[in-house]
Amino acid sequence: MSPHPAPSAARAPLRVALAGIGVVGGGVVRLLEANRDLIARRAGRPIEIVAISARDRQKDRGIDLSAYRWEDDMGALVAADDVDVVVEMVGGADGPALTLARQALGAGKALVTANKAMIAHHGLDLARIAEQADTPLKYEAAVAGGIPVIKAIREGASANQIARVYGILNGTCNYILTLMERDGANFADALAAAQAEGFAEADPSFDVDGIDAAHKLSILAALCFGARLDIDAVAAAGIRNVIAADIREAEALGHRVRLIGMAERDDGANGGGLYQNVQPCLVPADHPLAYVPGALNAVVAEGNFVGRLFFEGAGAGAGPTASAIVADIIDIARDEYGPAFAMPVDALDEAPAADAGARVGKHYIRLIVEDRIGVLAEITAAMRDAGVSIESFIQRGDEEGGGVVIALVTHEAPARAIDAALAPLRASAHLVGEPMHMPILAL
Amino acid sequence: MSPHPAPSAARAPLRVALAGIGVVGGGVVRLLEANRDLIARRAGRPIEIVAISARDRQKDRGIDLSAYRWEDDMGALVAADDVDVVVEMVGGADGPALTLARQALGAGKALVTANKAMIAHHGLDLARIAEQADTPLKYEAAVAGGIPVIKAIREGASANQIARVYGILNGTCNYILTLMERDGANFADALAAAQAEGFAEADPSFDVDGIDAAHKLSILAALCFGARLDIDAVAAAGIRNVIAADIREAEALGHRVRLIGMAERDDGANGGGLYQNVQPCLVPADHPLAYVPGALNAVVAEGNFVGRLFFEGAGAGAGPTASAIVADIIDIARDEYGPAFAMPVDALDEAPAADAGARVGKHYIRLIVEDRIGVLAEITAAMRDAGVSIESFIQRGDEEGGGVVIALVTHEAPARAIDAALAPLRASAHLVGEPMHMPILAL
Repeated sequence: MSPHPAPSAARAPLRVALAGIGVVGGGVVRLLEANRDLIARRAGRPIEIVAISARDRQKDRGIDLSAYRWEDDMGALVAADDVDVVVEMVGGADGPALTLARQALGAGKALVTANKAMIAHHGLDLARIAEQADTPLKYEAAVAGGIPVIKAIREGASANQIARVYGILNGTCNYILTLMERDGANFADALAAAQAEGFAEADPSFDVDGIDAAHKLSILAALCFGARLDIDAVAAAGIRNVIAADIREAEALGHRVRLIGMAERDDGANGGGLYQNVQPCLVPADHPLAYVPGALNAVVAEGNFVGRLFFEGAGAGAGPTASAIVADIIDIARDEYGPAFAMPVDALDEAPAADAGARVGKHYIRLIVEDRIGVLAEITAAMRDAGVSIESFIQRGDEEGGGVVIALVTHEAPARAIDAALAPLRASAHLVGEPMHMPILAL
Repeated sequence: MSPHPAPSAARAPLRVALAGIGVVGGGVVRLLEANRDLIARRAGRPIEIVAISARDRQKDRGIDLSAYRWEDDMGALVAADDVDVVVEMVGGADGPALTLARQALGAGKALVTANKAMIAHHGLDLARIAEQADTPLKYEAAVAGGIPVIKAIREGASANQIARVYGILNGTCNYILTLMERDGANFADALAAAQAEGFAEADPSFDVDGIDAAHKLSILAALCFGARLDIDAVAAAGIRNVIAADIREAEALGHRVRLIGMAERDDGANGGGLYQNVQPCLVPADHPLAYVPGALNAVVAEGNFVGRLFFEGAGAGAGPTASAIVADIIDIARDEYGPAFAMPVDALDEAPAADAGARVGKHYIRLIVEDRIGVLAEITAAMRDAGVSIESFIQRGDEEGGGVVIALVTHEAPARAIDAALAPLRASAHLVGEPMHMPILAL
């Protein structure tokens, strides 16, 4: 117990209702119990769980919930007079989570959520309801788990024009890529290992196809650029097509393969607009993102006065996610919050999508070809015809995927030219499988 | 110009006065001018400089200050009715900066400062005045420059008990150490190079003796542990005694030498209390602090739910420091602030100093000895008599500093035992110069 006069003497407890008690919900209960006194001191008032709702009351969650009022119907949390904050941990972009969020905000309750899919698809809608009801909508846990990156960007970097924001936003993909690095494994084996160790879901497509990272990126982009959140504007590719040879060749080139979500404001040279993309990239070995191990997340924000900020930590898991959720609750207890996207929804810019094809950079291209006369001429002719100049060309004679691996790095070229070079090759009878290309991250 | 209805229609401008226009003050003026519209959108109201005070009005600062009211007397900023926020950039722990800070807070103005020395020495006193006047005291720029680490800890990690907080808090030392690494240089040459390049002051003692890092560490410790800030409790050693051989041997052991400020709450096994120390350490190569290059800063906070958070960015310079100062101003404009040390001063714990001698860990010890019979026996006897067990022992025959370099790594031992082992060696006629010892950072 704290030796100090209880802050609770000064301010009434903040009363919290939890909706959805899975792994994350259990973490929130444990955290609020374990750190209760400390949180009361920091928040200036106690934070109390007053009610809980989840689908199955009988499920063994390994925690004693008997001290808390149970509601079978989530709607009862919204209706209850003794609830100040509803914490949505139900999940899913739509359905019960969205209904609960709308009702809670509409009723003037504060809403805290870890639901990246819901924020990515309905964040503006929810923020507008929150504004009308003059109540907080907070979602720190929706991006990069325990890393307080929403706060760091919304508030810590608020004085800056952000040139670009990017990072490793999906721990499952990073775990798989680092396994491939460590073991020389191919994607399928590394995925199976990640699944066995609990780092990937049985149905991994949400993670490995870049969808989860796209949700998070769209949220970061809205905050960084004061733009209307637009998940449909994010182009997302995942890591299924990365093969062991890509990891090897990247390393030989002084790079590592990482799934990078990046949002950048076009400077106007190509018509302006916002570039938002999730795809595997080659990251230079002297960039801090190259050292992010295992299932961690990391975010880089580049500001016009602060320069490059780098944040790293656990991107998922019960403890880190609970940490972010409760930080939001403490902000609410302290009355330290403002508009969900840093400014009112009507003050956000319409941000047209940038012309991604005009984006210039170096690219890594990998092809698997039949080992026969004329193939190299076909490749180099395709590059020449598209105006793509080759900086380095590697053919080690390695066989993989039923052919010989050819890797090359281009000089700076627009993405459109790379696509144009690959188009005839995709149709070539001498290519085995799809060509792979990855941008090389510029420092 | 923003196409949106001006947020200024809703709320009156926040009126700011700047005291001290050196490098940082110039940066603040430039930032508020360059990002004016963006800041008004994010803050929900314009932020206007209404007055400026510095010692020499005629000095050429490379910026046009003619648009702003000039006050020769800083006290006039406090007295002015049209000033909401005073930004103290005068510097120095006491004297005019402290007088201004006390007067501004006492008059109910908000105070923003980058002055780590003043906060380290008088932070509690100033926080108390701020509480009494119910006005904000903010100091994000005082620790780790542009990295929003005060916010990340005060708010982002607020749900956690912090086990320890540590990092690279002085960019000058990190610059010098990385030069020594890159060039195999000794300290004196690397310092001279850093001075020539503007990364070290003509009188470098504030930086290289660990004083600046100690100021920052004491602030982080108060925030992380809810403890009364106590700069006198920080033991500080600098990097003057690090020699080229230390860097080499550390690298051979898979480590890098970094000046680390660390605060840790003793778990009670040794009587409890707070450990606060700045000293060169060996950092394992797989720890992110080992990769912090040049003059950057980085901070690690370990929370009981979030795990390890890592933040990296520019620790000094006009732009990054201005970014942190203006972030504080924006928080004030948004009315998103609370007690300076996260809770009222009277709620902070008295934190007795932990028994640093009882702290257990591995240590690196380096001696320079005369190359003669009996020296090794003398060293190993001293270790044995102090109960220190040796894990590895390296004598390559390298000559440096007028003798032969011996480096050794101990098994885990209390710091007190290391001191006891070194005491007789310091008195030995066979030792050349002072022994050097550095803790090895535990992951």
